Amino acid sequence: MLLRMSTLFVRTLREDPADAEVASHRLLVRAGYIRRAAPGIYTWLPLGLRVLAKVEAVVREEMTAAGAQEVHFPALLPKEPYEATGRWTEYGPNIFRLKDRKGGDYLLAPTHEEMFTLLVKDLYSSYKDLPLTLFQIQTKYRDEARPRAGLIRGREFVMKDAYSFDVDDAGLDASYQAQRDAYERIFDRLGLEYVIVAATSGAMGGSRSEEFLTPTPIGEDTFVRSAGGYAANVEAVTTVVPDALPYDDAPAAHVEDTPDTPTIESLVAVANERFARPDRAWTAADTLKNVVLVLVQPTGSRELLVVGLPGDREVDLKRLEAAVAPAEVEAAGEADFAAHPELVKGYIGPGALGPNVDGLALDDEGRTAIRFLLDPRVVPGTRWITGANLPGKHVFDLVAGRDFTADGTVEAAEVRAGDPAPDGSGPLELARGIEIGHIFALGRKYAQALGLTVLDQNGKAQVVTMGSYGVGVTRVLAALAEANHDDKGLAWPAHVAPAHVHVVATGRDEAVFQAADELARGLSARGVEVLYDDRPKVSPGVKFADAELLGVPLVVVVGRGLADGVVEVRPRAGGDAQQVPVVDAAEVVAARVAALL
Amino acid sequence: MLLRMSTLFVRTLREDPADAEVASHRLLVRAGYIRRAAPGIYTWLPLGLRVLAKVEAVVREEMTAAGAQEVHFPALLPKEPYEATGRWTEYGPNIFRLKDRKGGDYLLAPTHEEMFTLLVKDLYSSYKDLPLTLFQIQTKYRDEARPRAGLIRGREFVMKDAYSFDVDDAGLDASYQAQRDAYERIFDRLGLEYVIVAATSGAMGGSRSEEFLTPTPIGEDTFVRSAGGYAANVEAVTTVVPDALPYDDAPAAHVEDTPDTPTIESLVAVANERFARPDRAWTAADTLKNVVLVLVQPTGSRELLVVGLPGDREVDLKRLEAAVAPAEVEAAGEADFAAHPELVKGYIGPGALGPNVDGLALDDEGRTAIRFLLDPRVVPGTRWITGANLPGKHVFDLVAGRDFTADGTVEAAEVRAGDPAPDGSGPLELARGIEIGHIFALGRKYAQALGLTVLDQNGKAQVVTMGSYGVGVTRVLAALAEANHDDKGLAWPAHVAPAHVHVVATGRDEAVFQAADELARGLSARGVEVLYDDRPKVSPGVKFADAELLGVPLVVVVGRGLADGVVEVRPRAGGDAQQVPVVDAAEVVAARVAALL
Repeated sequence: MLLRMSTLFVRTLREDPADAEVASHRLLVRAGYIRRAAPGIYTWLPLGLRVLAKVEAVVREEMTAAGAQEVHFPALLPKEPYEATGRWTEYGPNIFRLKDRKGGDYLLAPTHEEMFTLLVKDLYSSYKDLPLTLFQIQTKYRDEARPRAGLIRGREFVMKDAYSFDVDDAGLDASYQAQRDAYERIFDRLGLEYVIVAATSGAMGGSRSEEFLTPTPIGEDTFVRSAGGYAANVEAVTTVVPDALPYDDAPAAHVEDTPDTPTIESLVAVANERFARPDRAWTAADTLKNVVLVLVQPTGSRELLVVGLPGDREVDLKRLEAAVAPAEVEAAGEADFAAHPELVKGYIGPGALGPNVDGLALDDEGRTAIRFLLDPRVVPGTRWITGANLPGKHVFDLVAGRDFTADGTVEAAEVRAGDPAPDGSGPLELARGIEIGHIFALGRKYAQALGLTVLDQNGKAQVVTMGSYGVGVTRVLAALAEANHDDKGLAWPAHVAPAHVHVVATGRDEAVFQAADELARGLSARGVEVLYDDRPKVSPGVKFADAELLGVPLVVVVGRGLADGVVEVRPRAGGDAQQVPVVDAAEVVAARVAALL
Repeated sequence: MLLRMSTLFVRTLREDPADAEVASHRLLVRAGYIRRAAPGIYTWLPLGLRVLAKVEAVVREEMTAAGAQEVHFPALLPKEPYEATGRWTEYGPNIFRLKDRKGGDYLLAPTHEEMFTLLVKDLYSSYKDLPLTLFQIQTKYRDEARPRAGLIRGREFVMKDAYSFDVDDAGLDASYQAQRDAYERIFDRLGLEYVIVAATSGAMGGSRSEEFLTPTPIGEDTFVRSAGGYAANVEAVTTVVPDALPYDDAPAAHVEDTPDTPTIESLVAVANERFARPDRAWTAADTLKNVVLVLVQPTGSRELLVVGLPGDREVDLKRLEAAVAPAEVEAAGEADFAAHPELVKGYIGPGALGPNVDGLALDDEGRTAIRFLLDPRVVPGTRWITGANLPGKHVFDLVAGRDFTADGTVEAAEVRAGDPAPDGSGPLELARGIEIGHIFALGRKYAQALGLTVLDQNGKAQVVTMGSYGVGVTRVLAALAEANHDDKGLAWPAHVAPAHVHVVATGRDEAVFQAADELARGLSARGVEVLYDDRPKVSPGVKFADAELLGVPLVVVVGRGLADGVVEVRPRAGGDAQQVPVVDAAEVVAARVAALL
């Protein structure tokens, strides 16, 4: 393969695109790999498409090697199967919906569990037909609220999705493991660092789920790991619950005047100044913060929720959303407070909250119907400073379990570095990553909803158990760009690069172009993929800058050295330049390429 | 490659699907290649996907060989570019439209002229950048009123679309020819018979357009050809216009009572009975039939149109729609007639029609504002029997040009076998075909609308001239199935077949399965693509029927003959079965496969 820059459909840009927040987006656009067509929707130019095809090929090979069979579903699908599983509603505004000319409801599929389930139902009927794993590499659609970071969170993107079908749980375990192993091989082959973390199943349902994350500071997913081997995304981290404390000797709760303390900080200062405790200073961790939020269901219905948590922690909306999926969470607005005068902003306490409150009910309005959930750390016997539901007043020594209870607990508090791993494997450290794969042991949710059964050995109908396994193919490409670049441009690993060798002819000497042309053709004849910069009137500086931006792994410069019978071979990612006799160049460079692949 | 029927995701069906009208649809579904997901929307199963990939590969190779560069555009696109060219409206109900969560208007692209134009505008600016041809193989969407015939007229389908960009007309001619040549190579390699016919440009615009049709009785396109080499689709056929006739000696028009003659047939009978002419009998060709139709614009606006044509011809709606594009045409309904009492059903004549009517105006209501167009054969001096716009009355000897004129002519009459070719190359014969490719010399319509210019040698901005070139990839696959089947099933040409060899193990003898397994692996090791029917408890009859249905070109039966040391090799498409010693079988069969490819 030989691409000539003089005719290749590419234009490099010296300026960063205005909307690019991350390196992969910036460089893929600047290097002419992709182009924005609409927010979160991209066009693939020739070089980008070549890289994408190579990533797809690795995914396809490993899926096939793992025994999965390739099929291809439409992107445009009728509503009915998604209605049967509830996802038509659950996806809320996150899917694209449309009507056809006859008024029929359709969607652009964000994922295909329903269709695979129905297809297998359509074709198979016996336990002997299973196990089965199918996959596709297909264009998916999600109407993201905030498409961002180029290919990392798009609205039209390529995904490999696979689905396994088994007659029993042991079968599902094996199918899940086979896909998990294939994912490891895929990311190993692509040279992409990854961490496998425990995850929540969210709207997908199912019993077990893991994410493959590639660590990068620009990742939008936060995950945790411990030195002892625990790894999870923050949504999946469960709080280590302390033991309940005895409170027989605890003093009675007492309300105090604490004017002008609308924040935790001001409250702690006043408490230490005016209600100092003998043993130690009050800290934010002694306060119980009650945060008013709104749950928005996919149907659009809204419900207030108050989350009580230690005052030294913030609510992590993504953790809370994972806990209340498919609802989304918003901060309460002025209108919400106006509708609930019993919520005294800055002085909210459990006294007036929830149907199960035993304790203080300091206002005259009676109890509210607002749902009240506690952080798991608020175990019986813990003592709190918290709002008294009266302006300028807080209550001290309010004891959980004695003075108040709630409607339950919720994992809504932020996870912090140093928190204990739930499995006891030590303190957690936090890192950021991009989700490049996600595997789910779905269980029987979809098969049940859509009636996928097979007859077992005894002729009895058994609901099939399923797994679902996704790789964000276009996102993987972006992650590769994130992991393989410097400030000058991209630096692709050889097996996904759009070409193996970038031959640059410099100057205006006819002999140079002739030699470069011959070398390019010689390499191509040896099976090397060559990008040849044959542009006649472009300066060496521009050509070198383009070579650095485009990121082909080996750059061969044919220029002044030709007078001495040599060309220069430079690895794009760094390393020594090598002078190679021009007569051997095709042979030597082809061998270096072979070593890289 | 080795696929085992025992695990392959396929189920053959003995019954035809209820909705299948044509062989390709029936057999592709029965053989487990595709599956309907919604009207005109199909899922690809493993065998179908393999064939599709092979067709795509041929298209891709020939596009690349013709110098076209591959890119990939989104399917989901914003409205604005399509509004700039008017196609957002022109496509009417034929495209899928949707809104995103912010209320922005989007469409699922039916074709990508606008986006390619904008991309080239974005990247290129000089005549030196041209010529350029880009292509993609991509999923397209059209909300067909009547999706039919399986893959032949679908709503989601795969298309190869290419676009050329040139600075001048000579360049466009060369680019157009290069694509035309590539299309010939594609269809030659696929072994698909084709006819290149002149076509109309329709809603696409442009100066020149040709269709590639594959002849088949089930085709929905009618085309014509002459022995002298003329070929066109019926929409593009222009009527050979006879010379005007002198009418100085023609008798004056006269109205006659012709009760109970609402049809041409009854009118001709009455004319011959009561108004016989001396020289010959009246025929339907002596009558002028005036057909009331409704033009429906993409905006939904409706306008009545009357077409006058010889009574022996019907209006061909597709020809008329090509002439009035982007409007569509409907028959007038009762409400239309009720709104226009001057239209006396069964007795409509030109007297009261059109602003330019000279002649008889037999009613007292004055002239109507209805547009009136004539068949080109109705030249001045032709004499007609036609409606007198009064119930039960016709007018005789009404002379075109003397007694009536119209708002113009229109190519709306059906083309019939025996009609003269417009280029004088002899009488036309009619045939049916499937449109598998369509090439357009678009000219400057899109570049003008979207501002794509380049600077020429003199630094002057020139509007770029474009071509657009489509191959219906999924439709080509269906056409291949139409051309390669018999009543037992499919019979693929080797280069697009899902496998080269179908090894069938029959009986229950362990030795047979062992030998078949060894042969299948031996063939696979030689690079032969093998489908191996290793199902243990399936009868030979079922296996043979499946092999005939699936259509792999060579069938190798390992069965009873094994006792004598032979296997049988049968070509699926017919021809003698050959007994081959089992020890040589892999070698011999691999050689036969090589000869087929």
